[in-house]
Amino acid sequence: MPRNGRSNGSEALDAIVVGAGVIGLASAWRAAQRGLRVRVLERDEPGAGASGVAAGMLAPVGEATWGEDLLLQAALSSHRAWPSFAAELRDLTGEDSGLIQGGALHVALDADEAAELRRRYDLMISLSLEAEWLRGRECRELEGGLGPAVFGGVHAPHEAGLDPSALVRALRAACELAGVDVRCGARPCEALWDGDALSGVRTEDGDEHRAARTVLAAGAWSGSVGWLPEPARPPVRPVKGQILTLRGPRSGSVAGRIVVTERVYLVPRADGRLIAGATVEEMGFDTRVTAGGVHELLREAYRALPDIAELELERAVAGLRPGTPDNAPLVGPGNVEGLLLATGHFRNGVLLAPLTADGVAALLCEDALPASLAVADPSRFTGVAS
Amino acid sequence: MPRNGRSNGSEALDAIVVGAGVIGLASAWRAAQRGLRVRVLERDEPGAGASGVAAGMLAPVGEATWGEDLLLQAALSSHRAWPSFAAELRDLTGEDSGLIQGGALHVALDADEAAELRRRYDLMISLSLEAEWLRGRECRELEGGLGPAVFGGVHAPHEAGLDPSALVRALRAACELAGVDVRCGARPCEALWDGDALSGVRTEDGDEHRAARTVLAAGAWSGSVGWLPEPARPPVRPVKGQILTLRGPRSGSVAGRIVVTERVYLVPRADGRLIAGATVEEMGFDTRVTAGGVHELLREAYRALPDIAELELERAVAGLRPGTPDNAPLVGPGNVEGLLLATGHFRNGVLLAPLTADGVAALLCEDALPASLAVADPSRFTGVAS
Repeated sequence: MPRNGRSNGSEALDAIVVGAGVIGLASAWRAAQRGLRVRVLERDEPGAGASGVAAGMLAPVGEATWGEDLLLQAALSSHRAWPSFAAELRDLTGEDSGLIQGGALHVALDADEAAELRRRYDLMISLSLEAEWLRGRECRELEGGLGPAVFGGVHAPHEAGLDPSALVRALRAACELAGVDVRCGARPCEALWDGDALSGVRTEDGDEHRAARTVLAAGAWSGSVGWLPEPARPPVRPVKGQILTLRGPRSGSVAGRIVVTERVYLVPRADGRLIAGATVEEMGFDTRVTAGGVHELLREAYRALPDIAELELERAVAGLRPGTPDNAPLVGPGNVEGLLLATGHFRNGVLLAPLTADGVAALLCEDALPASLAVADPSRFTGVAS
Repeated sequence: MPRNGRSNGSEALDAIVVGAGVIGLASAWRAAQRGLRVRVLERDEPGAGASGVAAGMLAPVGEATWGEDLLLQAALSSHRAWPSFAAELRDLTGEDSGLIQGGALHVALDADEAAELRRRYDLMISLSLEAEWLRGRECRELEGGLGPAVFGGVHAPHEAGLDPSALVRALRAACELAGVDVRCGARPCEALWDGDALSGVRTEDGDEHRAARTVLAAGAWSGSVGWLPEPARPPVRPVKGQILTLRGPRSGSVAGRIVVTERVYLVPRADGRLIAGATVEEMGFDTRVTAGGVHELLREAYRALPDIAELELERAVAGLRPGTPDNAPLVGPGNVEGLLLATGHFRNGVLLAPLTADGVAALLCEDALPASLAVADPSRFTGVAS
């Protein structure tokens, strides 16, 4: 019997993962596939944070912007991994993540937006991304429901979408098949130490969870975990996003593919739902759905696809993304020995999950991080080489 | 033991009221106060129909339009009755209906709307209604949160609002104190007859409810009650309305009084809620909340009161108003002996409840209908004088 409380589970663990969102579950699954003994601690239910609210866009081309080349390379790398990642999950668990590889159409709704989108298109081409410029008429030929305001657009035929809630179910099932111990309602409250090294956490129920490594995958809450000493908390803040679920009478009735404007993205699901997201708001841990947020999403969605007016507004909800100072994630060693970070994915958690999971599993096995994850090295904020 | 099923309740009833919305409950209460034995049959819960969705505006001045003078007189008569009606309810039951006599400001958001509102203002004055024309600046002096689009407006200082859900609670309590037997989950399925005269209904649980008069107060469902022979069903159809509940941090933060535009009305509650209603849609028995409906309400609310953007969108819901061919209610004898109608109040059910209740109670006591209810005479649709 250990001195400080009940031990929990007779076998020694290789890793504890704190947080059962897409990042935590995917990382735990990949680690378990490499033979590690892994436990996931989730204070609520799997996907209770941003994963349960996300639209599930896999659209790296549209994210291309100036000065974020390394992040784009990570996104493209993870994007390439998605089809086999989703297929493997489905084959193992029978759960379908709702992956639709239907492409995306990024549209401009006036001349100013068109000029800006054209500049971004030129950047896409300079980066050798798969994208085609279309004039307004050509956009409407591709996507018949587009409104008359559409000035022009960029067709990215390889972009895709999936259903993050379905993905969480699949990942949880895969974790359990791989022997991961997923514990819900388990809220860490105190770090366990072995000298200066983190050796696990105690949860509020009094259980102690000891492992060689503790992976912090707590999403927007990663920067404010009370059980870590303040200097060990990563620079992660919540970034609020409001998002709508619209429901049509059948699949594909309003849009055949993802449609993205400067202010809204519209992601069709196979079952007739259309997800309209998302605001980006610095509001702390506020998850209120506001009149202004819903208004902006509906207004812009209506400008792009007027037929959405007839769809049922099934859900309006707000989630919290884990933002970092430079919008890139944190995957790598934390500020204390024994701590690994897998957080800070901001708007790209679903997209970056396969790559992040491979990275976390590699680090837990003392392997090198994939080169495309260099952008996520946490040491960029501490000045200490990892 | 009657031949055709179980009798229910040992005493003979004077009246059965079908429907426990604001109209049915108010009518039952007033009838019981006059010494009648009354039972209310509600298939769901009190206020489950339009009463639970309504904004609760008591704004007859704003309803003034050409060719509806008699309806306006009924509305003004009932409006005058409201303060004492609400006070009596509160004194009897301790339940507050949330009546706020703060006036209403009817605003025009562009020059066209201003010209139309000015014409309606001239009509109001010709009808001796209490109303004052204000220029845009004067509107903003009265209601500081109004947006720059406001061109002009009409201030109606005696208009008021209340909380229909609170009103339903008060009316139910008052009914029970007055000895009314309010039965929930009681769904009529068959008429009972005494020769050619309606003598009550049988409910789905097999109970028989016999009374000298049956009052149909089933709101939007009044025109399609299966237990009445088709010729006896009144010409009532459902008119869909979508409505939003916004919530602010405290009372009066966004609007100090009711604000009405051509397309939306905004009704403040004492607890900080602001009700934004309502669409008017001919969609049959459809209560889906749609992207288009919510968008229109939020857009227009934002044009009038930009500060609503920060309010929480707490609820979006659709209800069904009981519409008639001429928008006036039906209060009086139905097409078969023993049937009374108290339905068809369209957008004015809460406003017209005190007057309607007095009218129903009078008819049940063989008294004359109040003169101001002449507009509601059902015989106007049958050609048969009542």
